[in-house]
Order: sequence, then structure tokens, then C-alpha cells
Amino acid sequence: MTKKRVVIIGGGFAGIHVARRIKNKELEVLLLDKKNHHLFQPLLYQVASAALSPADIAFPLREIFKHYPHTTVLMGEVTKIDKEARKVYLSDAEFSYDYLVVATGATHSYFGNKTWEQYAPGLKTLADALSIRENILVSFEKAERLGDSEEAKKYLNFVVIGGGPTGVEMAGAIAEIAYSTLLKNFRNIQPEKAQVFLLEAAPRILPPYPPALSARAQKDLEKMGVKVLVNTKVVDVVQEGVKTDSSFISAHNIIWAAGNQASALLKALNTPLDRQGRVVVEKDLSLPEHPEVFVIGDAACVMNKKGVPLPAVATAAIQQGSYIGKILNKQIPKEKRKPFKYFDKGSLATIGRAKAVGFIKGFKFAGFFAWIIWAFIHIVYLVGFKNRYAVLLQWYFHYVNGVRGARLIHRSIDP
Amino acid sequence: MTKKRVVIIGGGFAGIHVARRIKNKELEVLLLDKKNHHLFQPLLYQVASAALSPADIAFPLREIFKHYPHTTVLMGEVTKIDKEARKVYLSDAEFSYDYLVVATGATHSYFGNKTWEQYAPGLKTLADALSIRENILVSFEKAERLGDSEEAKKYLNFVVIGGGPTGVEMAGAIAEIAYSTLLKNFRNIQPEKAQVFLLEAAPRILPPYPPALSARAQKDLEKMGVKVLVNTKVVDVVQEGVKTDSSFISAHNIIWAAGNQASALLKALNTPLDRQGRVVVEKDLSLPEHPEVFVIGDAACVMNKKGVPLPAVATAAIQQGSYIGKILNKQIPKEKRKPFKYFDKGSLATIGRAKAVGFIKGFKFAGFFAWIIWAFIHIVYLVGFKNRYAVLLQWYFHYVNGVRGARLIHRSIDP
Repeated sequence: MTKKRVVIIGGGFAGIHVARRIKNKELEVLLLDKKNHHLFQPLLYQVASAALSPADIAFPLREIFKHYPHTTVLMGEVTKIDKEARKVYLSDAEFSYDYLVVATGATHSYFGNKTWEQYAPGLKTLADALSIRENILVSFEKAERLGDSEEAKKYLNFVVIGGGPTGVEMAGAIAEIAYSTLLKNFRNIQPEKAQVFLLEAAPRILPPYPPALSARAQKDLEKMGVKVLVNTKVVDVVQEGVKTDSSFISAHNIIWAAGNQASALLKALNTPLDRQGRVVVEKDLSLPEHPEVFVIGDAACVMNKKGVPLPAVATAAIQQGSYIGKILNKQIPKEKRKPFKYFDKGSLATIGRAKAVGFIKGFKFAGFFAWIIWAFIHIVYLVGFKNRYAVLLQWYFHYVNGVRGARLIHRSIDP
Repeated sequence: MTKKRVVIIGGGFAGIHVARRIKNKELEVLLLDKKNHHLFQPLLYQVASAALSPADIAFPLREIFKHYPHTTVLMGEVTKIDKEARKVYLSDAEFSYDYLVVATGATHSYFGNKTWEQYAPGLKTLADALSIRENILVSFEKAERLGDSEEAKKYLNFVVIGGGPTGVEMAGAIAEIAYSTLLKNFRNIQPEKAQVFLLEAAPRILPPYPPALSARAQKDLEKMGVKVLVNTKVVDVVQEGVKTDSSFISAHNIIWAAGNQASALLKALNTPLDRQGRVVVEKDLSLPEHPEVFVIGDAACVMNKKGVPLPAVATAAIQQGSYIGKILNKQIPKEKRKPFKYFDKGSLATIGRAKAVGFIKGFKFAGFFAWIIWAFIHIVYLVGFKNRYAVLLQWYFHYVNGVRGARLIHRSIDP
């Protein structure tokens, strides 16, 4: 008997949860990813802010599936998909499939302004996080060398664009670095001279949250020293700083946390996409007329009961992955598949050390209690025992004495 | 009263131990380093072999000296030293000194063959270690994609050049990765097909160790699958592999652990250097006719009682740093300085998980017991409480189940 082959593109939350569910020996699984690791993206801002090391939140895909002998992991970028021939292509290889799961995630969207990316990097990969980390640390070092000059000030201005959870977490973390972690570390500059701006085009930060929590988050951020500018639209990003509809902010450090767009590979599926480039899927997350092809996670536009697309969060991706994994494991034909149902587990965002806001099923909470729940959930979902301990250890030291242990600069700061 | 200024170039073992000893309020200390962190070099091979993360063995210099208000840390590369004017220069600044301590360490020496470096990187900085780690991991990924072809084999050949402690540790670690860590991780290749070569020009590895320990280390390495080739001189290193005086070994991964040379900045001191470019210092580690200038650590050629230069090891650098720190703290004039005396604490080298060899004051030991001593000493000397716990945790998981937690590839492996 020849086995049927499931090809999964993408080893994020959605992709690994499909593969984990497949234990049927009539199937073989091929998991393809551009990277060799699964990344726990919700904690990526902690790498960018020097609190965690890359290996704390990334786990080799091969290690996750080493006890799944029917599952093969290959590192490589899919360049083409042929739905009719049922094949996917790498630069030097092709694989036919019986079932295809596309879980390629999303990347930053600069809303058509491609030149902005070089000055305002986003935060999606470990390489992004390391480069943001290095820029932040280098800026403080340069400011220390420049002393009290005007130029030094520019290095101490930080702008985060986008007031969603990533923007809020990043702005809070930079404020902690500037006003607390580094307080005793410098002699020529007072780190308090640093200014951290959080820009949001909407009338409040964390727009999908209840207004009371948005207000609480803004108040907490302001207490930490962040200048929160709502109703502020970015009109240009240049090397020297950010131009908004009301002013110009000089800054060497600009971080983009404003927009998402789905991976470009999805165009190869030749099927309707939404405004963010996500595939519009059927109720069973398959493609119209292709019940053997599924698109899940941030790559898919999945509507909730109210006809609103699900948020691009890990819980949605995990649930979709498990749902497809079960369908494939039993090889359920399309007509017998129950529609995917999203179970909303609520939302949580950290603001700083021991501060968070969240809401679950109508209950709102904030402060230390919210942070404890946040920390617990993130530890539980982190892949790998070792990583859990490692992250807990780092958090313990961070919580107790504000240490950010991963403050490493690899490049030279000399011209 | 104007304070006298001590300028220390280099934040390695030697440099930080000078600064730590200076508590005299009549002195101010300026510590200059190209990097922002102190690096625990004895464990660098564990970063290169994916067992530890960079932040586990590196500690921000600013953090080490945050409670030393008279000490300023500046990140920057010294480009010039003027002994007569008593000044050091960065690209954009100059600093005068009353005392100068040069502790700039060493870099790789390719014995005049500059083209070898691009194919056989050495292991001195975190960037070196990360690049070696990435090359090793990428090779296994490429071999998996290439399957059983001839080309796949080349990716599975590893050559370590130099049978000193670094070479022995690196060869042992790669063998562990190939034959144990990755055993269950691949489907298309058998990692056992990997070949690890350790090349040494001398008749035995670990030449400064007693012959019995060299033999033991070689036996242990061979048991782990390493092909140890002694009496083997490298005559050329090219992109395709290593040419020795007896054969050609095809390999994509070549690691240089063979030679040291002192930092090029030392030439600026305009004083006699030895064959490795180290400064020949007086008995108090100062320069002839310049009792206010000291050179210590791997940058200095310091003779022991028998007229043999001290080895380039951390204990020698630490002892020299403390010795100079005391002299400066009390501002002892040259004629009253007691000559530096090296206290030999013995030597230790790890071979693999729970295996090491060492000798202390004529006592030789090997195996698990040597490894426990090795682990204990390295934890004690590691700077920073947090790092100690983090490293112990990683070692625990590594020891218990062979995990190498930092197996991250950041770059794409596609053309």
C-alpha cells in the first residue's frame, strides 16, 4: 500500500498543530519551512528588548517531530504550488501531495510604502528581533560616546508605530530599558533623557480591546514614561525620523508594528484573496473546489459568526491546526466535515514588568493579576520543557532585579 | 584635586580584573572595548556547537561596573596610542591617561596564509561562534535535502585544524552533534555518515599535557567517532576542503583552532614584540622606560621561572589583571613593585559530555571526575549570577538527554 502524502508548508503554530495530530499510519507527512525552527512569536518582543535569548523561544522543528517517524522535516522555501498537478516546488526539488496545508503566516505591510521598511523594521523573525535589539543597544552606546551634544539626543528617541499588542509591548519594554535597566549603567548620558513614542492612527491604543482597558494601558504606559500619541497618522518614514500628520519626530530607532499582509506565496494558489492578501477559505478551511487544499493561520481569512475575520493570534492558528489535523488523520471527506468553530479564549497584552491588560468572556482584568495569567499561559504554550525552564529563569531574574540578560552587540559601532 | 586617570583597553579577563581591583578614589578608570560585553571565552565552543546561547557566556561590561561610579565604560575601537603624549585615540575622540593598561588579547594566526581564513574561520568572538554554528547546522539541512547523493557527503565532513584544547573540545562537540544529538532528527541521511577529522601537526594532541593524557584524550575522541590525525601538517585550505601533507579531505566545514597572534594595535606601542606579536614586558608587566604602561593577558609575553612564555589561558590573564589592579590601586612606584608571579592552577580540557582530562600540580585525572572539576571551575569563574544558573540549567538538560538547545539557523539555505 502506498501511503498518502500530506505536505504542510510552514512550521508556525498552525502548521505544527496539524502535524502533531496526524498519527494515522496510512499517511506520511512532509513539513516544509524556510527556517529550521518553530518560533514562539508572542514572546519575540522580549528578544528584541534583550530580555530573552533567541534559543529561549525557538525550538528546532526536527526536535519536535523526532518521535514521529512518518514525519519528515525539510528546510527550504516553496517557490511554486501547482494545484492541478498536486505538486509543490523548492528551488531544487518537487513533491507531489494528496493533501496540502498552507500555513505560511504573515509578514509586515507598509501599505505600499516600500522605502519605509529599511528605516522602520518590523518584528516577525528572530533576525528582525536581533537587528532591533542591536540598534537599540548601539544607540545608547553612541549616545554615551557623544555625551551631551545635540546629536546624542537623536539616538535617544525611539518611535514605535502601531498601538496593537506588539506596539504596546515593544514601547513598554523600551521604556523599561531606558528608564530602569540602564539607569546605573551610563556616566555621560542620563538615560532618562530618552524619549519613547507610541504612535496610533486610531483614537485609542489596543483598538480591539474594551475602551476601559485601552485607557488603562495608555495610563500605565504613560506612567512608565512612554509618550502615547493617538489619532496620529504616519505620513512618511525617512532616515532621520518619522513624519506624522501633525509633526516630525527625529529618531534613529523606529519600529514598525502597524500592518500585516499574508505571505506572497498565496498568490500561487490562484484563488480569491482579501485586502490583506489572505486566502478566503470555505467553512472547513479548504479551497473552493479543492477539498484537499487547506489554508490556515495568519494566511487565511476565516470569518467568525458575526462575519468579522478572526484575529491573527496564536490561539486561532492552533485551533485551526488541530481541526485540520483531525480531518486529515481520519481522512474525512468534505461533505462530512463539520465547519471550523473558533473558541475565543480572550486577549492579553503585557505592558511592562508585572503589568498587563486582558479580557476573557466579558471579564476585564489589569495589573499584576493580568500579568500572572499572561505569564502562566505563555509558559504553558511554549514548546519544549527546557525552554520553559529557561524562560522562567530569565523572567525570575528580570522580575526580581530588572536584569535584561541578552544585551549583546555583535557589530562594531565605529565607522 | 584632579584625579589620575587609568585607561584600560580591553574588557577580557585581564582588563576587567584590573578595573575590579581599583577602588582608590584618587583614580578614575576608563575601560574601552570594541564590544559591549565581557566574553567567557573558555565556553565559546559551546556556543559554536549549539549547546549554549551567546547571552549565557557574555555579560554587558556596563552591568559589571554599574556599582563602580568612578569607572566609565565606553564602546569603541582604539586606533592609536601615543606613549609620549600619554594619549589613546578613538575614531572621534582622544583620552589622556596617567596609567595605561593594554589588554587587547589575541586573534587567529593563519601563519601568513590570509586566504585560509574565509574557508576555515577561527573561534574568538560570539560572531565567530554563531557563524560556525550556522554553517554546521546548515550543512546537515543541505545534506538532508540532497539525500543519498555524492554531494551530500561533502556536507557531512567536518575538519578541525589544531589539536589544542579548543580543537579537541570542538571536534568532540561536533561528533556528539552528528552521532548522538541528531540521530533521530533526520530521515534521508544517517547522521552516522558524518566524518569528523581532528588534524594536529605535532606527534600528539594537547601537546602541553602529559603524554598519558594526550593518549587518553585521543582514545576518548576516537571512541566518539572522531578521526584523529597527528603528525599531519596542513599545507593548503581551499573552498573544497583541506590539503594536508599526506591527503586531501573534502569538507564544507573547516574550523581553525591552530594559531594565535596578538592584536595588531600592539605595534602602536613601538616596543619589542615576540614571534606571536606579543609585547615583551618587564617583570612588573610594564614597558621598558614606561612604568606607567602595562601590557597583560594574551597580548603580553610573560616568562615563567624556566624562561618559557606563560600559556594564553584565562587564569594567567586573571592573575595578571589582579596584580596590576593592586599596583594601580596603591599607585606603587616601579622600584617598589614585586615581580609578577604566576600560580599554575593546572590545565583542563573537555572532550565530550561528562568526559575531560586535566592535570594539577603533577596529579593527572580523566573521565567523569575530571569533567565535574571542569564544570565546577567554569561555573565559579563565570561572571554574573544569572548566567551561572542559566548555564547550569542548559548543562543539566544537555547531560540528561543530550539536548543542544540553541540549534538555530537564521539565514535561508536556498540559493
